Amino acid sequence: MLNRVRSAVAHLVSSGGAPSPRPKSPDLPNSPSSTSAPPAVAPEAPKSPSARPGNWSGAPAKTSEARARFSRPTFLQLSPGGLRRADDHAGRAVQSPPDTGRRLPWSTGYAEVINAGKSRHNEDQACCEVVYVEGRRNVTGASREPSSSQGLCFYYWGLFDGHAGGGAAEMASRLLHRHIREQLKDLVEILQDPLPPPLCLPSTQGTPSFSDSSHLVGPQSCWSPQKEVTHESLVVGAIENAFQFMDEQMAQERRGHQVEGGCCALVVVYLLGKMAIIVRNGEIIPMSREFTPETERQRLQLLGFLKPELLGSEFTHLEFPRRVQPKELGQKMLYRDQNMTGWAYKKIELEDLRFPLVCGEGKKARVMATIGVTRGLGDHNLKVCSSTLPIKPFLSCFPEVRVYDLTQYEHCPDDVLVLGTDGLWDVTNDCEVAATVDRVLSAYEPNDPSRYTALAQALVLGARGIPRDRGWRLPNNKLGSGDDISVFVIPLGGPGSYS
Amino acid sequence: MLNRVRSAVAHLVSSGGAPSPRPKSPDLPNSPSSTSAPPAVAPEAPKSPSARPGNWSGAPAKTSEARARFSRPTFLQLSPGGLRRADDHAGRAVQSPPDTGRRLPWSTGYAEVINAGKSRHNEDQACCEVVYVEGRRNVTGASREPSSSQGLCFYYWGLFDGHAGGGAAEMASRLLHRHIREQLKDLVEILQDPLPPPLCLPSTQGTPSFSDSSHLVGPQSCWSPQKEVTHESLVVGAIENAFQFMDEQMAQERRGHQVEGGCCALVVVYLLGKMAIIVRNGEIIPMSREFTPETERQRLQLLGFLKPELLGSEFTHLEFPRRVQPKELGQKMLYRDQNMTGWAYKKIELEDLRFPLVCGEGKKARVMATIGVTRGLGDHNLKVCSSTLPIKPFLSCFPEVRVYDLTQYEHCPDDVLVLGTDGLWDVTNDCEVAATVDRVLSAYEPNDPSRYTALAQALVLGARGIPRDRGWRLPNNKLGSGDDISVFVIPLGGPGSYS
Repeated sequence: MLNRVRSAVAHLVSSGGAPSPRPKSPDLPNSPSSTSAPPAVAPEAPKSPSARPGNWSGAPAKTSEARARFSRPTFLQLSPGGLRRADDHAGRAVQSPPDTGRRLPWSTGYAEVINAGKSRHNEDQACCEVVYVEGRRNVTGASREPSSSQGLCFYYWGLFDGHAGGGAAEMASRLLHRHIREQLKDLVEILQDPLPPPLCLPSTQGTPSFSDSSHLVGPQSCWSPQKEVTHESLVVGAIENAFQFMDEQMAQERRGHQVEGGCCALVVVYLLGKMAIIVRNGEIIPMSREFTPETERQRLQLLGFLKPELLGSEFTHLEFPRRVQPKELGQKMLYRDQNMTGWAYKKIELEDLRFPLVCGEGKKARVMATIGVTRGLGDHNLKVCSSTLPIKPFLSCFPEVRVYDLTQYEHCPDDVLVLGTDGLWDVTNDCEVAATVDRVLSAYEPNDPSRYTALAQALVLGARGIPRDRGWRLPNNKLGSGDDISVFVIPLGGPGSYS
Repeated sequence: MLNRVRSAVAHLVSSGGAPSPRPKSPDLPNSPSSTSAPPAVAPEAPKSPSARPGNWSGAPAKTSEARARFSRPTFLQLSPGGLRRADDHAGRAVQSPPDTGRRLPWSTGYAEVINAGKSRHNEDQACCEVVYVEGRRNVTGASREPSSSQGLCFYYWGLFDGHAGGGAAEMASRLLHRHIREQLKDLVEILQDPLPPPLCLPSTQGTPSFSDSSHLVGPQSCWSPQKEVTHESLVVGAIENAFQFMDEQMAQERRGHQVEGGCCALVVVYLLGKMAIIVRNGEIIPMSREFTPETERQRLQLLGFLKPELLGSEFTHLEFPRRVQPKELGQKMLYRDQNMTGWAYKKIELEDLRFPLVCGEGKKARVMATIGVTRGLGDHNLKVCSSTLPIKPFLSCFPEVRVYDLTQYEHCPDDVLVLGTDGLWDVTNDCEVAATVDRVLSAYEPNDPSRYTALAQALVLGARGIPRDRGWRLPNNKLGSGDDISVFVIPLGGPGSYS
């Protein structure tokens, strides 16, 4: 029976493939005037209609910590001296949790390195936690004894790749899992009940009866009895809403506290048996994809078309393969609109001389000539360069959630999930990572729990390169990543890997 | 060199999985008042900014033919008596082109049968043509002799599944390939030139020089030199725009002429080497997917959220697993918004009592309780039942285009592309169709060109069933399809199949 109830989620936002939207933005600007601009409301991230949790259990206290100059994940247990070394752009020492301390859950490996001078501090952040969710009493209206309602535990790993400052990444690394916990509180009883989730819950003010509700179906013929809703889709919905609340909290707190910049997030939630994975028995299973101006072009263009006021008089929602020149007025140029995947010619009119909403290719692709990632948290103050036009309406805080059922497969100690920030993926790919996994893990005993940290370190070192001439070079003499690099290696099976 | 230039497109819109939006709608209503309602402008189908072709080469004359009581594809060569038999709901005789006449291009097989009384006439239509595209002179500005510009030929197959009347399907079957031809006219020289397409063309008024344009790139750093645009993406763009012009023509002509209802379209274009396919060496390659309120839920909800005026005061953009009842106000019910793939609980408010924009499951899924397909041509007059709220803004006329390169594979005479309307797919599936392909083709000599018509007939007969008790039954005693059924079988290789 439990198998039916087992549900959980691997959950991935972005990992956006582009550098900071504003190169060399001032670190932690503290001028109140720069942070009190009117909020940019995101149409893609409307206020959730669900009941808003009252208290973020310590959130305000935590966020004030974010104002400290900079910080690294607490599980690194860095001393003040260690913190200085981790912040050294010249040495770029690889950081991992100490051998001597408490191991991360599941013997997870972790390593990170600061960038080569791209931003003042490391703008990546990481979090790895076991989170206990206590159920709210009597959610379903069933008259159970309080003691009969058992809480739920979930395991949580998150990487946050900040841009234009480290504030959003730090806040997300401290609070996103709490938002997920908050969203799951209503589901504690429901997820442990083998019956399908109730479609309707009584109001907390105590509407007397909890109706089975299947008899309430209206007379409309297109309402087939009622939709099947799975436990799994409830967890997906909880995570989606948690991201939205996280983003809203950033919007609210950017005035009182300093939440500068934005961040992409790559998150794994293990709950009752399912999870994300990337390498299994030598097979590579990519579990996330990037959200960029190129991959989300049509979403962005549709919004610009439906809400032209968001483009000001500066941008056009049409895409052109290069900038249109005034002297080309009246000629025909290739274009794409929000409906097209192909290209066609159009006669150039005055409006087409505006800057395109989406332009550039690959790492250089940009929304409004400013930002190269299109989903993430924060960026509430982001404006078009030398303009007051807000960019946030085009950014989505909603994640793409994929589910992998860990109980459906046999896993060996060499099966791992690799999470990495852009610094890793900019200079390597799935196949090279899989080869490193193979090489490093085979050099250790399968039951040696330190092998996963060694693997994380090897991946970070391999992406960083070693100092040679002017730059950090890879063995093939290509440039290594000058970006911040952070890597989790999560073992999926084998003796001792689940602690 | 030619390989680089070879481009063409398999192009599929919808094949929507649901019955007519208005059961038993009056056939060919002719009241001018009912057709002069203000047009419902579709935000997804904005006016194309490209130059509008001046003359649809005979289009108006053709559309007036559509006012005839009913018609079947001309290639069936039906006599008046044959037309009556094809229109007989009781006999449901399977129709195919005569053995004696000119064969369809590529020895394509075709068969169709009328519905079992669902609508007065067969609302499916079909077209199979070889279309010659004469280039417009001097499009690229290169000073070639007129004689050096060779035209292009494309092969074209289209199935049109009408709903709420046969007018839109008939008009599309007569004119869509002409719109494609019109869009391709500007591309004739460009597609035959091995060089990449020019990004910019001189104006037809004769701006003197045809600029290479690569030196015109602006100073903006995110403009990488210029985007690569392939020949293939030009053909895709031409087809996309042709659909848009077809839909606009229906909007314009619904006043003067009678274009009632709407239609889904499934179209194949063979041009310079590429095409769509479904069965190759026993392998099944699905080339189209359905656009329904379920598969397009998030697109529909986003539009309702961004443009709430399109919902009137009657609908909510939120989805609920069943209709919300007034007595449930204040309770919590599962919902999904435009951003969510999972479900969550929300407190029921007054607005949630409105009818959901998207509701129902499977064949019963509906937009605004009215229509079960979300992409197609026509439907400009479609309103919500007992309301003046137009539905067209939520429908997209844009196709999804997939490309299959026929030159990249070896094809044998048993490799076929099967196109079918809903009548076929409602009662069968890819695997069963593949089994029928295997069984029928193996009963004929590989070089017998009649085998493809025999296969089309077998597929239609298999989906229709035979009369038994009250209904048309399949061998397993399930009900056969009571819908119109039309099938093309296009051979992809083997001697004599390309004519």
